[in-house]
Amino acid sequence: MTAFVGVADMLKWISRHGAEKIMAEMADTIESDFRRWESFDKSERVADHTPFGVIELMPISDPDLYAFKYVNGHPFNPARGFQTVTAFGVLADVHNGYPVFLAEMTVLTALRTAATSAMVARRLARPDSRVMAMIGAGSQAEFQALAFRALLGIRTLSVFDVDEAVSAKLVRNLAPLGFDVKVCSSASEAASGADIVTTCTADKAVAQVLTDADVAAGMHINTIGGDCPGKTELDPQILERGPVFVEYTPQTRIEGEIQNVGADFPVVEFWRVLNGLELGRTSPEQVTIFDSVGFAIEDYSALRHLRDSLAGSDLAQEIDLVATPDDPKDLFGFTTAPLPVA
Amino acid sequence: MTAFVGVADMLKWISRHGAEKIMAEMADTIESDFRRWESFDKSERVADHTPFGVIELMPISDPDLYAFKYVNGHPFNPARGFQTVTAFGVLADVHNGYPVFLAEMTVLTALRTAATSAMVARRLARPDSRVMAMIGAGSQAEFQALAFRALLGIRTLSVFDVDEAVSAKLVRNLAPLGFDVKVCSSASEAASGADIVTTCTADKAVAQVLTDADVAAGMHINTIGGDCPGKTELDPQILERGPVFVEYTPQTRIEGEIQNVGADFPVVEFWRVLNGLELGRTSPEQVTIFDSVGFAIEDYSALRHLRDSLAGSDLAQEIDLVATPDDPKDLFGFTTAPLPVA
Repeated sequence: MTAFVGVADMLKWISRHGAEKIMAEMADTIESDFRRWESFDKSERVADHTPFGVIELMPISDPDLYAFKYVNGHPFNPARGFQTVTAFGVLADVHNGYPVFLAEMTVLTALRTAATSAMVARRLARPDSRVMAMIGAGSQAEFQALAFRALLGIRTLSVFDVDEAVSAKLVRNLAPLGFDVKVCSSASEAASGADIVTTCTADKAVAQVLTDADVAAGMHINTIGGDCPGKTELDPQILERGPVFVEYTPQTRIEGEIQNVGADFPVVEFWRVLNGLELGRTSPEQVTIFDSVGFAIEDYSALRHLRDSLAGSDLAQEIDLVATPDDPKDLFGFTTAPLPVA
Repeated sequence: MTAFVGVADMLKWISRHGAEKIMAEMADTIESDFRRWESFDKSERVADHTPFGVIELMPISDPDLYAFKYVNGHPFNPARGFQTVTAFGVLADVHNGYPVFLAEMTVLTALRTAATSAMVARRLARPDSRVMAMIGAGSQAEFQALAFRALLGIRTLSVFDVDEAVSAKLVRNLAPLGFDVKVCSSASEAASGADIVTTCTADKAVAQVLTDADVAAGMHINTIGGDCPGKTELDPQILERGPVFVEYTPQTRIEGEIQNVGADFPVVEFWRVLNGLELGRTSPEQVTIFDSVGFAIEDYSALRHLRDSLAGSDLAQEIDLVATPDDPKDLFGFTTAPLPVA
């Protein structure tokens, strides 16, 4: 049997442990997997583009465990009552190829994306960071805020969204949790005085939600929404302000902010910072930039974190995804054997 | 909710309708999808190779429906009590990217592979074909026999397998169903006098389970087991005996029998025969060869056939694979809303 974690079980898991604690622990799992970066077989993702959006399969494996995520991106979905992004994922045993774990990943991706951002910022942002600006207050925003509180102690937010109702939603969700949230009327106003700026907007365009003039010395910029070809968020001049850190260079060249600069623009893969092979932040005045697009190792980590966290609990069903004939060469006999009377 | 067809429901479906009737109907679905070949977006499959085997993702889409199959191939599995190949698949709505249907495909792939072989042989084998030789009597063999009976009226089989116990299993499964089965002591003996030869062996090697001397005028050769790099079944000289038909040329060049001949070796994509763009068999004396490797459209067809066949029946569960917040931009509110008391 294959373990299955559906939406209801995922929500129970979050209810029992809390999203903030889950992301703090998941960040450690992701960090430990980033540290063994070279043990992963990193396949390219397969994307199927249509006029409505994209459907992607993101596979990855280490010598023992294979993972893939199914994820769509349909920018016009919210206007029709659907989510822009939904996802699910699978873990399989590399040794026999059997799928062993299936989980919803719409919610899990939100958790892993924020956990990854905070895991990176923990190394790159100034240790005395207190205020985070959030440009874009959509589905991912609250998860970012909680993950940054868990890992960096951030409690003060300055928020801007083009849709006031969406900013109000963020205040409604986060104020009761002890955040001090200021709603701003522009991205510049939000960024002013911030130690960290998180950009997470949905518009599929070469946008500039943050301009070079908005960036102050010492800032850490966590840019999430520039994550596919033709979809970016930063004034490219910002990329010249300090070192740019990425997940997996070949993918970020295609999907990240650096698609707007030359193919030889220097970047640092973040796993190398974790392993002491490259420097992170080198001074309090430096601007640091994490050009995040989301990488398959993060999904692998999130799935194995969820699986391990749920082991022994009641929060997973079993589904009969794999046929298991007694004689592996007699699939037909298995298929046509008399069925037990119900 | 997403519909889920597990192994138990799949077996009930086969029990209710019969594998033979299902494959006859599925062959028509596959044929109708092959006829609209050009409406599909044919992505390459993504393979993750390890020392133990391979795990592949096979995506495909038309303007309305996206499908992918997860499938592994682990040659050493049967010796450890596992199946060489297991699979599952998903259908998704191209318009919003939501996965709508998940099904086991270990059994379904066996059905679709045999349905495809028979669908092709219906056009290429001599109409007076009566005897089929089967080289290899493993998991796929009985499905092939039933599909060929359903579509071509084949009732007489001559079988060879290197493992006598596996031949005995085939007799045990098929004799009660009205087949006349002769177990042979060599592939040559099995092929002698046969109108159709189906090769379906598991050895991962450049093998020659059928030699040129075994091939007689008028034969149709249905070669199934040569389906990945370094795994073939035919003496390459056989490929010179008559036209070679394939599913999707770029994939077959890498995975099929034609990997053992030049990259310019002429082949005919079978969908072109169905649509009258190329000739099939042109004389009773001609040898015809179907170099089958299995293609994603067949999985798409099998999944949509299964979904349509089960519509309105009790043979599918619903699973909560996709989170559906009332406000698509408030995933956090959805995630942390108070849970209903059980």
